[in-house]
Amino acid sequence: MRRIGVLTSGGDNPGLNPCIRAVVRMGLYKDLYVMGVRRGYAGLIDGEIEQMDARDVGGIIGAGGTILGTARSPEFYEKRGQQKALRSLNRFGIEGLVVIGGNGSLTGALALKNHGFPVVGIPSTIDNDVNGTDIAIGVDTALDTIADAVDKIKDTATSHNRAFLIETMGRNSGYLALVSGIVGGAELVLIPEQEITFEEIAETIEDAYIRGKTHCLIVVAEGWKPGMMALAERLREREDLGFSVRVTRLGYVQRGGKAGAFDRLLATRMGAAAVQALIDGDDGQMVGWVENKIMLTPLEEAVEFQKKLDDDLYELARVMSI
Amino acid sequence: MRRIGVLTSGGDNPGLNPCIRAVVRMGLYKDLYVMGVRRGYAGLIDGEIEQMDARDVGGIIGAGGTILGTARSPEFYEKRGQQKALRSLNRFGIEGLVVIGGNGSLTGALALKNHGFPVVGIPSTIDNDVNGTDIAIGVDTALDTIADAVDKIKDTATSHNRAFLIETMGRNSGYLALVSGIVGGAELVLIPEQEITFEEIAETIEDAYIRGKTHCLIVVAEGWKPGMMALAERLREREDLGFSVRVTRLGYVQRGGKAGAFDRLLATRMGAAAVQALIDGDDGQMVGWVENKIMLTPLEEAVEFQKKLDDDLYELARVMSI
Amino acid sequence: MRRIGVLTSGGDNPGLNPCIRAVVRMGLYKDLYVMGVRRGYAGLIDGEIEQMDARDVGGIIGAGGTILGTARSPEFYEKRGQQKALRSLNRFGIEGLVVIGGNGSLTGALALKNHGFPVVGIPSTIDNDVNGTDIAIGVDTALDTIADAVDKIKDTATSHNRAFLIETMGRNSGYLALVSGIVGGAELVLIPEQEITFEEIAETIEDAYIRGKTHCLIVVAEGWKPGMMALAERLREREDLGFSVRVTRLGYVQRGGKAGAFDRLLATRMGAAAVQALIDGDDGQMVGWVENKIMLTPLEEAVEFQKKLDDDLYELARVMSI
Amino acid sequence: MRRIGVLTSGGDNPGLNPCIRAVVRMGLYKDLYVMGVRRGYAGLIDGEIEQMDARDVGGIIGAGGTILGTARSPEFYEKRGQQKALRSLNRFGIEGLVVIGGNGSLTGALALKNHGFPVVGIPSTIDNDVNGTDIAIGVDTALDTIADAVDKIKDTATSHNRAFLIETMGRNSGYLALVSGIVGGAELVLIPEQEITFEEIAETIEDAYIRGKTHCLIVVAEGWKPGMMALAERLREREDLGFSVRVTRLGYVQRGGKAGAFDRLLATRMGAAAVQALIDGDDGQMVGWVENKIMLTPLEEAVEFQKKLDDDLYELARVMSI
Repeated sequence: MRRIGVLTSGGDNPGLNPCIRAVVRMGLYKDLYVMGVRRGYAGLIDGEIEQMDARDVGGIIGAGGTILGTARSPEFYEKRGQQKALRSLNRFGIEGLVVIGGNGSLTGALALKNHGFPVVGIPSTIDNDVNGTDIAIGVDTALDTIADAVDKIKDTATSHNRAFLIETMGRNSGYLALVSGIVGGAELVLIPEQEITFEEIAETIEDAYIRGKTHCLIVVAEGWKPGMMALAERLREREDLGFSVRVTRLGYVQRGGKAGAFDRLLATRMGAAAVQALIDGDDGQMVGWVENKIMLTPLEEAVEFQKKLDDDLYELARVMSI
Repeated sequence: MRRIGVLTSGGDNPGLNPCIRAVVRMGLYKDLYVMGVRRGYAGLIDGEIEQMDARDVGGIIGAGGTILGTARSPEFYEKRGQQKALRSLNRFGIEGLVVIGGNGSLTGALALKNHGFPVVGIPSTIDNDVNGTDIAIGVDTALDTIADAVDKIKDTATSHNRAFLIETMGRNSGYLALVSGIVGGAELVLIPEQEITFEEIAETIEDAYIRGKTHCLIVVAEGWKPGMMALAERLREREDLGFSVRVTRLGYVQRGGKAGAFDRLLATRMGAAAVQALIDGDDGQMVGWVENKIMLTPLEEAVEFQKKLDDDLYELARVMSI
Repeated sequence: MRRIGVLTSGGDNPGLNPCIRAVVRMGLYKDLYVMGVRRGYAGLIDGEIEQMDARDVGGIIGAGGTILGTARSPEFYEKRGQQKALRSLNRFGIEGLVVIGGNGSLTGALALKNHGFPVVGIPSTIDNDVNGTDIAIGVDTALDTIADAVDKIKDTATSHNRAFLIETMGRNSGYLALVSGIVGGAELVLIPEQEITFEEIAETIEDAYIRGKTHCLIVVAEGWKPGMMALAERLREREDLGFSVRVTRLGYVQRGGKAGAFDRLLATRMGAAAVQALIDGDDGQMVGWVENKIMLTPLEEAVEFQKKLDDDLYELARVMSI
Repeated sequence: MRRIGVLTSGGDNPGLNPCIRAVVRMGLYKDLYVMGVRRGYAGLIDGEIEQMDARDVGGIIGAGGTILGTARSPEFYEKRGQQKALRSLNRFGIEGLVVIGGNGSLTGALALKNHGFPVVGIPSTIDNDVNGTDIAIGVDTALDTIADAVDKIKDTATSHNRAFLIETMGRNSGYLALVSGIVGGAELVLIPEQEITFEEIAETIEDAYIRGKTHCLIVVAEGWKPGMMALAERLREREDLGFSVRVTRLGYVQRGGKAGAFDRLLATRMGAAAVQALIDGDDGQMVGWVENKIMLTPLEEAVEFQKKLDDDLYELARVMSI
């Protein structure tokens, strides 16, 4: 192997740049040429590809977003798009590809692998719903950002004696909301994975009021039904809960900012390991962080199903909210 | 004067605790007893009042929110409520009151003054719309919080090549949005004080795309009509702008967090000056920071009209967005 | 078991308060009384012990330091001191004790265990040198703090084209310096566990200059010999290195601040697990986070020797500095 | 005027990049060519000069340091160096120059002016010791950084019941230490401008202990004699003060980081005003922020003497430390 490529795909997060940097530097250290593919699979199809050297990734370990850009590429879902992508890879002499992204992006990587192209995936999504790794790149920094926002809202909630609904990202997965709830000291967490009635929610608020709490924070995953706004509307009809209710949807700030130390280290380890896997011929795999060490999992298994939420965490959130 | 009171009223912000601390410590330094009134005018009416000493405010200079709590009090708008408040002040032997709050709260202070009670106001609102001061307590820290959020969203916007609408607080005033736009490097700012057509907005986005910008950020004040969500809907119908559009409403995070150095210093100066004004018999005034020094303005003037936005700032935002 | 105690001992760090909170809330959830011991073993000897309820730990998950205080207690190293401590425990009816601290503090816990008292330890030290856990409480937040400082110094180093020596804590362990070096993007890391000659250091600086880097950052562990200041002196005699040299000793800022999300979650898990261990009769153990789950290790083993540094990390630092 | 230049000189700070950005964009807006001079006067002498466009300064409003680099240039202090600098300016067709820097750099600007070259200065130094402006670029962000560090050290100080000496920058000026002391809630501030005996310092510590404070923080300016380390040594001989003593020298972190909102706005205003001044023929001036508006001061006056410290601030620090 003499020339590898790297791309970032899907939603961005703060761990992408540290990971790109690690792929580039490990590649160079192993005497490979490293080609950066811009705008994910879309750029791969269009041949937006450039050689990268050590200085190109200088200083980016502390920069949010992705210097390679990212995009969603409907074209790549079709066989025709994949053919174009393979043609680009061949045209630029790329013999192995590192794909950094979430479930959708890794499914794309699997498609390339199934065409016989050597590819290694790195799990990167703040939702932490990729199988085959205990934690994905971006999760830890997103949790820090959310915890900071929850802390800020707690200031206001306490000053005014209010209940707050705070919506985090997570369309299919409650991980982000659940851990945010624990580390933000929330009274309740609402996630797709757990059933709860309106009455139970209302009682939690009333109960917090009665027990003398100065606020009541409820963290709501984006994917929880019927959704934060619908809940807020119903709660506002109830004037007997003690606290009046306000809402904040954290939105896209959750994806931004520079990576924290944990994500920088994780991204660096994964990036280096992905290059090593390509060199070793361990392609068709995803690099994961499992039980405190790097572990490879076949891409098929990684994307086969969504990672299950740890039940203990939900219980922990409940215990800590007393 | 032997005994003074202090209360925080209206929306909270990070400068309140440093200001309470300054009132308490300056009061004690001047051999006064200082009484903390809980929950603004509501607590004043209800007699939720306690003596405070130097240790009670230890460590709060770096704590968000207000240790005294705050509330809105419809009762206090009526003469009956004001009579109850005066009765509480007399009952606790309070001879002068420091009111920390925005336009509404300072109007309340004026009511007490018109009943003959010695009161001094301190402007505190992230909207920076109080007359008689160049800047109110809380503005600077809110701007830091918003700038940080805009920086984060810029990471995502750049990675995905998107346009973002970001809504800040400011129901009647565009100050927060305008300055956030300048310091966040936004391409456009939408505020109640400035007319703009939909076409002009659309052109700004298209223009940013054509000039090769990697994103287009538009900061929208809460009070701008027809509002961020309505704008987003119309923009999404336009597929010819180059960038696709996303929205984030920053919400209550803007009020939280610990005060930055500027707000701590401003709040400390204003708190100390307010106590001095009570001692000097300069009551019925609001303490302002005008032309880099403390200046007193009669409460009547301070609340008479809303502070006008500086035209130069809007021009500066425009120039810097090229 | 009806009544348990909790104390923090040794150097403080941001994870202590979240951990105290978790012990208290898990204890209450399990219908135990929880007694807070102030100032570590010193306060235990002196009987500075008070009952804690859920509200006492409200809001502390985001507060730096330890609300229980901490201290070093030479008296407790003597049998006489330990007898006094046991007497205090009996006097307050405490039947099990959670000790949160580093190697020294856990050795103290072992002493109590050897007297037959049920005790469970929780590893807490920014040095990450406690055996029996992959990571101790406080490490992750300290790394974030250091990474942020290194980022800031990098701004200055790049602006002036300088080499910087940055000293982190770590008297016996290079973990903090090593990982800081990786996540801060340092050109070199100097730690007690690795030999290096002065010439190799000088060459690294010169090499960075020649390769066109705009700065050269070297992270130095406090325990590295002959020490950062001695190195700086020698480097200043060398005017042929391309970069002039500056130093910053990060000092006590590394211990402060509020815990990040990772430490809050880890501390919460460990605190809850420690209470469960006491209830289950699993005393004489230390709660560790091993391979992504809670694991108990006998205190004897935990304190028997200092945790070894992962060789792969040093190699990773070297590869990434190209 | 068709072509202007801009350089940053002296110590760096977070406001430099926002200021460079403002000069470039205002210049372009006024249909000027803007040339960036690298490495201050050294680069001016060497002709390290390049044209800049709007995209070159895209995204730098939130980046620490200076993209132009900075340096100290002994050669420029000599007439020969200044002649070379003028020759470079002519060679590149630069008709007006914006110099961003502190007292030394502005004295350099004055030299160019005295050679008849149109130059406008912008005060930039975290020491805030430049005459002709209420506040210089970089001061506010440095204060935020220091306040954050002091907050962190306070966590540790309180947990251990200790006294801490914290050294800030400020070789000739106590402004940074003084305001840091106020906003960090320090018990005492030691600055070159104020005399104090060792006994008074020792009493302050003892007094804080006796009054029940949980810590004693003393902020020391770098330029205070006999210096923090000498003081610490003497204090350690005194075991009767209640608190044991620790030290932290904040060092170069004070210069780094991204600019806060205040500095971004100030730098933007000053940068735009400097370009306007060149266009208007108001050269030989320094742009200042005086009484809440832009004001020009002749460079001679600006550098004639060092700005005096506001006595009220020292008094405020004392009152607030009770």
